[in-house]
Amino acid sequence: MMRAEDGSPSARLFRAVHHLMVALGIGVMLASTVEPLEAAYGVPLAIGFYVAAAFFLLEYGARLYTAPELPGGEHRGTVGARIAWATSFAGIFDLISALPGVAALVRGPQTVLVGFVWAFKYVRYSPGLASLGRVIGNARQAILSVLLGFCIVLLSAASIAYLLERNAHPENPEAFASIPAALWWGIVTMTTTGYGDIVPATVAGRALSGVVMVGGILIFALWTGILVNGYAEELRRLEFLRTWELVAKVPFFHNIGASLIAEVARLLRPRDYPSGAVVVRRGEPGDCMYFVVEGEVEIQLAAGSLYLGAGQFFGELALLTGEPRNATVVAVQSCTLLALDIVDFHELMARHPELARVIREEASKRLHPPARPVAAVAGAHN
Amino acid sequence: MMRAEDGSPSARLFRAVHHLMVALGIGVMLASTVEPLEAAYGVPLAIGFYVAAAFFLLEYGARLYTAPELPGGEHRGTVGARIAWATSFAGIFDLISALPGVAALVRGPQTVLVGFVWAFKYVRYSPGLASLGRVIGNARQAILSVLLGFCIVLLSAASIAYLLERNAHPENPEAFASIPAALWWGIVTMTTTGYGDIVPATVAGRALSGVVMVGGILIFALWTGILVNGYAEELRRLEFLRTWELVAKVPFFHNIGASLIAEVARLLRPRDYPSGAVVVRRGEPGDCMYFVVEGEVEIQLAAGSLYLGAGQFFGELALLTGEPRNATVVAVQSCTLLALDIVDFHELMARHPELARVIREEASKRLHPPARPVAAVAGAHN
Amino acid sequence: MMRAEDGSPSARLFRAVHHLMVALGIGVMLASTVEPLEAAYGVPLAIGFYVAAAFFLLEYGARLYTAPELPGGEHRGTVGARIAWATSFAGIFDLISALPGVAALVRGPQTVLVGFVWAFKYVRYSPGLASLGRVIGNARQAILSVLLGFCIVLLSAASIAYLLERNAHPENPEAFASIPAALWWGIVTMTTTGYGDIVPATVAGRALSGVVMVGGILIFALWTGILVNGYAEELRRLEFLRTWELVAKVPFFHNIGASLIAEVARLLRPRDYPSGAVVVRRGEPGDCMYFVVEGEVEIQLAAGSLYLGAGQFFGELALLTGEPRNATVVAVQSCTLLALDIVDFHELMARHPELARVIREEASKRLHPPARPVAAVAGAHN
Amino acid sequence: MMRAEDGSPSARLFRAVHHLMVALGIGVMLASTVEPLEAAYGVPLAIGFYVAAAFFLLEYGARLYTAPELPGGEHRGTVGARIAWATSFAGIFDLISALPGVAALVRGPQTVLVGFVWAFKYVRYSPGLASLGRVIGNARQAILSVLLGFCIVLLSAASIAYLLERNAHPENPEAFASIPAALWWGIVTMTTTGYGDIVPATVAGRALSGVVMVGGILIFALWTGILVNGYAEELRRLEFLRTWELVAKVPFFHNIGASLIAEVARLLRPRDYPSGAVVVRRGEPGDCMYFVVEGEVEIQLAAGSLYLGAGQFFGELALLTGEPRNATVVAVQSCTLLALDIVDFHELMARHPELARVIREEASKRLHPPARPVAAVAGAHN
Repeated sequence: MMRAEDGSPSARLFRAVHHLMVALGIGVMLASTVEPLEAAYGVPLAIGFYVAAAFFLLEYGARLYTAPELPGGEHRGTVGARIAWATSFAGIFDLISALPGVAALVRGPQTVLVGFVWAFKYVRYSPGLASLGRVIGNARQAILSVLLGFCIVLLSAASIAYLLERNAHPENPEAFASIPAALWWGIVTMTTTGYGDIVPATVAGRALSGVVMVGGILIFALWTGILVNGYAEELRRLEFLRTWELVAKVPFFHNIGASLIAEVARLLRPRDYPSGAVVVRRGEPGDCMYFVVEGEVEIQLAAGSLYLGAGQFFGELALLTGEPRNATVVAVQSCTLLALDIVDFHELMARHPELARVIREEASKRLHPPARPVAAVAGAHN
Repeated sequence: MMRAEDGSPSARLFRAVHHLMVALGIGVMLASTVEPLEAAYGVPLAIGFYVAAAFFLLEYGARLYTAPELPGGEHRGTVGARIAWATSFAGIFDLISALPGVAALVRGPQTVLVGFVWAFKYVRYSPGLASLGRVIGNARQAILSVLLGFCIVLLSAASIAYLLERNAHPENPEAFASIPAALWWGIVTMTTTGYGDIVPATVAGRALSGVVMVGGILIFALWTGILVNGYAEELRRLEFLRTWELVAKVPFFHNIGASLIAEVARLLRPRDYPSGAVVVRRGEPGDCMYFVVEGEVEIQLAAGSLYLGAGQFFGELALLTGEPRNATVVAVQSCTLLALDIVDFHELMARHPELARVIREEASKRLHPPARPVAAVAGAHN
Repeated sequence: MMRAEDGSPSARLFRAVHHLMVALGIGVMLASTVEPLEAAYGVPLAIGFYVAAAFFLLEYGARLYTAPELPGGEHRGTVGARIAWATSFAGIFDLISALPGVAALVRGPQTVLVGFVWAFKYVRYSPGLASLGRVIGNARQAILSVLLGFCIVLLSAASIAYLLERNAHPENPEAFASIPAALWWGIVTMTTTGYGDIVPATVAGRALSGVVMVGGILIFALWTGILVNGYAEELRRLEFLRTWELVAKVPFFHNIGASLIAEVARLLRPRDYPSGAVVVRRGEPGDCMYFVVEGEVEIQLAAGSLYLGAGQFFGELALLTGEPRNATVVAVQSCTLLALDIVDFHELMARHPELARVIREEASKRLHPPARPVAAVAGAHN
Repeated sequence: MMRAEDGSPSARLFRAVHHLMVALGIGVMLASTVEPLEAAYGVPLAIGFYVAAAFFLLEYGARLYTAPELPGGEHRGTVGARIAWATSFAGIFDLISALPGVAALVRGPQTVLVGFVWAFKYVRYSPGLASLGRVIGNARQAILSVLLGFCIVLLSAASIAYLLERNAHPENPEAFASIPAALWWGIVTMTTTGYGDIVPATVAGRALSGVVMVGGILIFALWTGILVNGYAEELRRLEFLRTWELVAKVPFFHNIGASLIAEVARLLRPRDYPSGAVVVRRGEPGDCMYFVVEGEVEIQLAAGSLYLGAGQFFGELALLTGEPRNATVVAVQSCTLLALDIVDFHELMARHPELARVIREEASKRLHPPARPVAAVAGAHN
């Protein structure tokens, strides 16, 4: 399976076509339910539908053929891997997405329900959505507990409302005619949606409504409490995983001993800069130093510019001296840097003298550079 | 009283029947208020009602007979314990749930209000709901303060709206006819429910509405602030209690001295894995090590698989060397593990050399295993 | 001025009468705007009104006479203090509350707007509301920034909606007839109130509505973000102030040196227990130790009960040994305890050997008590 | 470009005129769409419009002429700087704001859409809004992921609702006539707006509505989770930047070594006091000490008052002795102080003995002052 982060040109092209096909499929579905559009453009809409459906059928075949290696499973492309993939969640979902074209040929263009299935195909390409799904998944027990509480309060409120209001709506006898009918009022009220199609008429019913509205807000505020804490944990997790991968790419850290990397990875924060972005500005206070992981930055010194690439570091001078930045640093290409906060910098220097020595020596060299050509400078200046 | 976590087959059977009876009782109540259903299925509904009611009557009797030991109270099953239980909150609630059948026999099938009482019976089996109740309970003072502020703003808004709007609704003279009527508008507006049955007509009244809506959102955002912080505290509490219980089950920690357990318990995080779940994957970065509390895991090494049970640990190699995982670990049965984060791992190793020594020795053995049969390996490999 | 926390019987009586009078005044106001009630009970309502009004007039006189000492100002009861109080916010507010009776005598019973002024009198007695007010006050700049953003988006949305919808409502020509009219639609939509009195009719107008609803939710979620963080800070502040006051009452801490108290105060958490509450339960894991600040607790040991009062501590044994609690502790009277978490306990013991020695010695005495009568035991057992 | 914080009288005057012109422009726009107002005051409204439009045209010219130095770019006022500014976001926005007057002269008074463009001019003067924009900008990926999830659920719900409800609305055949029409119901329901113009009629449709409402609340609670965590990070960032600037202004910190400043800056919290505000009150517990950055404070001792200015500190005595404050401190002028929390104070003293010595010596001098005139006291008393 092509990974969402796969950056090769062919993967990018496939992604573009895939997204276009999903959009086409959904667009056709939306349009074909609008009668005037369907009447005027029935044929092009049908063609659009079959193009999208054929694409997803082909995609299913291709994915099945190249069946990816599953964790701890068979190698890609073997029959075992194909069966494993076909019976996995992704495989079954892709099968469902592949069938509408066949179904339409057999049973006529009942394409309505298909479009929203195709919309889920975007999920595979959205790492952020997976991340949010994990937040909800981790907190599912607490979320369901809130839902249980919501249902109990809802049922109680509907029962009481039924008793209070069942004879108070002569103009609309269906309004609170049964508890199920009162449940409709209850859910519309507790979620503060308030369609206004059923509104209590008695004073007691209105007082109950007020309690239900306020109670609904309180109950759903618990969801926010749960998700805020869950998201904070997910953020920490994502940051650690990303930093770990990046730290391994910086040669500087290779020399400091493997067990220290884990500690350093906790402290560093990855930051992405587009080409042309200003990383630090001359004269600003220095709140962190940077390691270059990918791309190139330009250090704009008075004596001319220096260019630093992957594995080099800059910005440590302002942290050591406490003086403002002595150079502006601009990303020449799109860059990934690892930032080390000033507080963590001093903590790390205190705990690991060998690290401190390397950085201080480099800084000292930069302050009092020996007479050598600029092109030969190995480190970074700021 | 059977505990919610009680996993014996008879307890599980009882729970299933209990939940079924609650669902039956509520279902009957809902259906019997829908006239066509009541007309068509009056007899089966009545039978369903009496079955559920009889079950809850019997349950009350059984619970009273086996009256559980109350904290600091009498032993289970004595007369004292029965009286204590009968007068406790749980006992009185169960009595209320037991009476509808008797009442229906005496006073006719006025069963409407009963169903929602039965819904509360689910609460007893939802530890998550108890946890959320504690969050709200701990923060009740702040929650009530918000409610007081809400009431003051509501009363002020309704008074002003009454002055502005009382003569502006010739088509609906009841709309803002009194302050109590304006309060109904106020609560519907402040909670952003917006039924639309009463809408201000004057420019001043609409401006006031806007202020009331925005003010309502601000006031209820305070609730979220309160509950987010309260839930964060509850999460810490739950985690500590659970870990404490689990740590006591790992023999490895028995040797490190009782006073150290408290510190370790703070650092470990319990994690549950269903059977077949992948705990760590070969090639991933190592962000924590694991202790097995319950269940069994399979370490899939190149040289064959190893099985580790309760009390053993794995995953420490990747933390010590900084290299990726060298084996995939899968839960063979449903497992409870204690995870030690890489950061805390290094902190703990630094502070407690004797602990570090045990883990390093085990790791060293695993890297350079003496020639002995796999079945004799005591520790875990990863 | 009587403080909200003033617990003397006369203060409590005053508070009860005060709250009753506010409730009476508000109740009369509500009732007197309901025509049937006013017609039927005009005289008793008028009497109720004048009773409440007279009470607030008297209260104003009494408060003015005993004018409280203002911070850094004159002593209570002097003319200077009276002028200072009369021109303070509290004084002016009380004057406003005192005038309605006089006004009603002069200008007739136009009492409507008075009631909600009286409602604010509850604020003085709600420390929680003051606390929440401080949260909002501290974050007012950020809250106002959100409001500015809201207004800009609202104005933009209303302008565009006016262009899109002004000719699309033949049945209700006033709906989007001007931008001010569109602003009404905008605020009802952005706050997700949705009265439904004005609903866009064009496709573009509906798409704009969707954007406005989602944008409104996003903008107001910022308020929640601001208040969550502000409330977290307020919680820390409140806890520190309360603990500081309590630590000063525990003799144990008097001996450990003044500068250490500040550190200890950061770690201790005040907890209130009603009479009869169980503080720790035999067999539970020990997650903290306790210092008694006020009240008395009963330690239920196998050998009989012990009673500990203010200044004594208990619960340290389980922390030192890591074993479960060996006694149940119940609050005999309503108690205030200071809890020291197990993690902070070990940190404190490590940093302050002299404190550790005192606690360990006491614990050792309790484990191996010399032969002496129970009544002579000075410390606490758990 | 004049900075928002620029405090010179001319800048303040410009700001006042600028804000007035924005308000005038918006007011004219609102009024000119209200037909009766336009009919009665057409000429003054047109004059108001041209005044505001002329102002913004002039402003554009002035800003272009004095074109500010861009980061890393040309010096102000050069042709290069002018082109750079004119093509920057700010320049293009100001151009758009400048054109309506010209456009109105050419194409007639189609002024409607202009007003809301002018509203964005307030953004430039609101640092808080920039800060909130940064929070949303940093979290844009997660916010967009939530939006994607929202769209997928919305499309699914609309498709299902279309199937369930399309034939259930004989009285309003347009209600669920197509999926696009059902999308309108979906977005109104998922955001809990609930206009009530389209309400499901079938039982299944109502059940779906309930799920959609609750799902919408859950999805948007994720936004809150994202923004709460993002705002917490922004708060830390703002505080650090501000403190760093202030620390540099306190001479006391100049002597403690440059690298220590970074650490101190993390601990200090800036606080602003208006003239006359009470900073500490005699008899209160001491929870922090203060450094004066700007302004003057009065120390109200029994022996008379002392005045401290920029660079001096007070409040350390209560932290060292653990006793309550021995003096009330009032801000004589509007002040900026740096507060050092008691916990951080002790941590800092422990880690930096030379800092501790300076503060202790000063405190000791203050407790046992040598016989010298009050005017000669160099430090601060509290």
